[in-house]
Amino acid sequence: MSIRIGILGYGNLGRGVECAIKHNPDTELVAVFTRRDPETVKILTETAKVYSVKDAEKLKDEIDVLIICGGSATDLPVQTPEYVKYFNVVDSFDTHKKIPEHFANVDKAAAESGHVGIISVGWDPGMFSLNRMYANAILTNGNDYTFWGKGVSQGHSDAVRRIKGVKDAKQYTIPVEAALEAVRNGENPELTTRQKHTRECFVVAEEGADLARIEEEIKTMPNYFDEYDTTVHFISQEELDRDHSGIPHGGFVIRSGKTGWNNENSHVIEYSLKLDSNPEFTSSVIVAYARAAYRMNQEGQKGCKTVFDVAPAYLSALDGAELRKKFL
Amino acid sequence: MSIRIGILGYGNLGRGVECAIKHNPDTELVAVFTRRDPETVKILTETAKVYSVKDAEKLKDEIDVLIICGGSATDLPVQTPEYVKYFNVVDSFDTHKKIPEHFANVDKAAAESGHVGIISVGWDPGMFSLNRMYANAILTNGNDYTFWGKGVSQGHSDAVRRIKGVKDAKQYTIPVEAALEAVRNGENPELTTRQKHTRECFVVAEEGADLARIEEEIKTMPNYFDEYDTTVHFISQEELDRDHSGIPHGGFVIRSGKTGWNNENSHVIEYSLKLDSNPEFTSSVIVAYARAAYRMNQEGQKGCKTVFDVAPAYLSALDGAELRKKFL
Repeated sequence: MSIRIGILGYGNLGRGVECAIKHNPDTELVAVFTRRDPETVKILTETAKVYSVKDAEKLKDEIDVLIICGGSATDLPVQTPEYVKYFNVVDSFDTHKKIPEHFANVDKAAAESGHVGIISVGWDPGMFSLNRMYANAILTNGNDYTFWGKGVSQGHSDAVRRIKGVKDAKQYTIPVEAALEAVRNGENPELTTRQKHTRECFVVAEEGADLARIEEEIKTMPNYFDEYDTTVHFISQEELDRDHSGIPHGGFVIRSGKTGWNNENSHVIEYSLKLDSNPEFTSSVIVAYARAAYRMNQEGQKGCKTVFDVAPAYLSALDGAELRKKFL
Repeated sequence: MSIRIGILGYGNLGRGVECAIKHNPDTELVAVFTRRDPETVKILTETAKVYSVKDAEKLKDEIDVLIICGGSATDLPVQTPEYVKYFNVVDSFDTHKKIPEHFANVDKAAAESGHVGIISVGWDPGMFSLNRMYANAILTNGNDYTFWGKGVSQGHSDAVRRIKGVKDAKQYTIPVEAALEAVRNGENPELTTRQKHTRECFVVAEEGADLARIEEEIKTMPNYFDEYDTTVHFISQEELDRDHSGIPHGGFVIRSGKTGWNNENSHVIEYSLKLDSNPEFTSSVIVAYARAAYRMNQEGQKGCKTVFDVAPAYLSALDGAELRKKFL
């Protein structure tokens, strides 16, 4: 029998989860819950139904894991502790400094209801976190580096779009190749924000807008751009739609460290991702962890978990003997 | 109180474990067990003692985890099931096709004695296995590639040294850069053995030996070299000692796969290692898993485990809240 999954929130991430379920035959999409009028939401899976979010609780016995696809700013802090009362849940909460609070809230509700809630699943937080942790446990004496990109930052694109005279925009975060190389060579460089990443913006300006002012406003925008070297390209809406409609992303997690009685040997561990679609890859990670949430709960586990707490085998549709044969 | 560790077998790997323990202040080396006369074995740790392997069982209450540093061919199949009767153990068993049998033997003995035995720990099998497994659980529709090197293959170096007229030799396995690039670009190439790796030999010949014959014997050696493009360099013993005394290794695990309703998006996950010292890195992984073996057993777990069965958090000296804060 397949693992019955519900999706709460049908945006880019929710649609990605729907696709990932299709790629995992031991999982099955049962329901999509939306805050919109369910009649207006068309999904791809013919065998699943769309419900109002208000009806979610009623389907608690028909869903093994609810994947919560809301935003970290205001949705997940409320939704995850709420729905773990009725379901095993997985979310992709990514507001780093609020993770302790979110973990505590989900843990309390999950412990009381007897469910498993896995939070902060995806690639960063998620697979990048795991790789930072594994690498630190192995090389205890070393340095960590994370580079992001090349990829689209939604937050930075939004910030550019809010500038007066900007009709549309896409922002790419790009790691600095020379910095990456220095890290890979085990040089343990101390890198400023500017030395690690550059930013590139493709901007569609409104007719007659002052392009020099727009460029200046982007490059000096506090927090978002002022600490980076930024390049601004003005292009047409057609060009933006044609060449920049994807949501690629990726990055690099590198740890270099020393071993030996007198630290005489150096090692470099690198994990990298090159993603055509940020939400679809994130969703693929989430569905693997949904499988884990279901299995861990079946074994009697409960409470809030992160990627650090989940034994790898729980993520795979294969059993232990198959995993050892195929991957060990 | 620190985790008390014993080492069985004091070769390259045993010495690496001793160094790794120094880098993990929550672990402590208590004893080294040797088949040699203990009087003749000098170790680096002043607070630890050397014992005959015959006395290992007597120290069962003074050691939390025994790390078994024997060879996979004849030592570990006997030692790991034997010593898991008295200790939690970790080994680096790497004879792939015999893993099911080894797992079953260790599991039976460990279940009876109530200990945890973690087998096949290191980087391949070990961290490479983990990364193959994680990547497959995430991208269910894709292709796997493992490249090894640049690094010293002990088995191939030994094979060259057995050739008549060869005094000493070192063999390096080297991944083919063009193949790596094709894989990274998501081209999903079908690669022959020859297309994936080349081999490079540095050979010290005996005086008056027939160099052409030696080179021919190397290049045509069945299984070891005949399926590869091999380069042979004849050098002096001084050059070999000066330039080729290290034991570097490493490699790349890459999975490329598709997501999306119609497989429209591609993704590449890559994990790579660049290691100055193969045995010291392997040892560093092993000590992290020794910590896990101890903790899992403290929680009441028993039986044979592999890297797939160990939740990542068990590997770190940090607690859950610290891990979430530092690495999530």
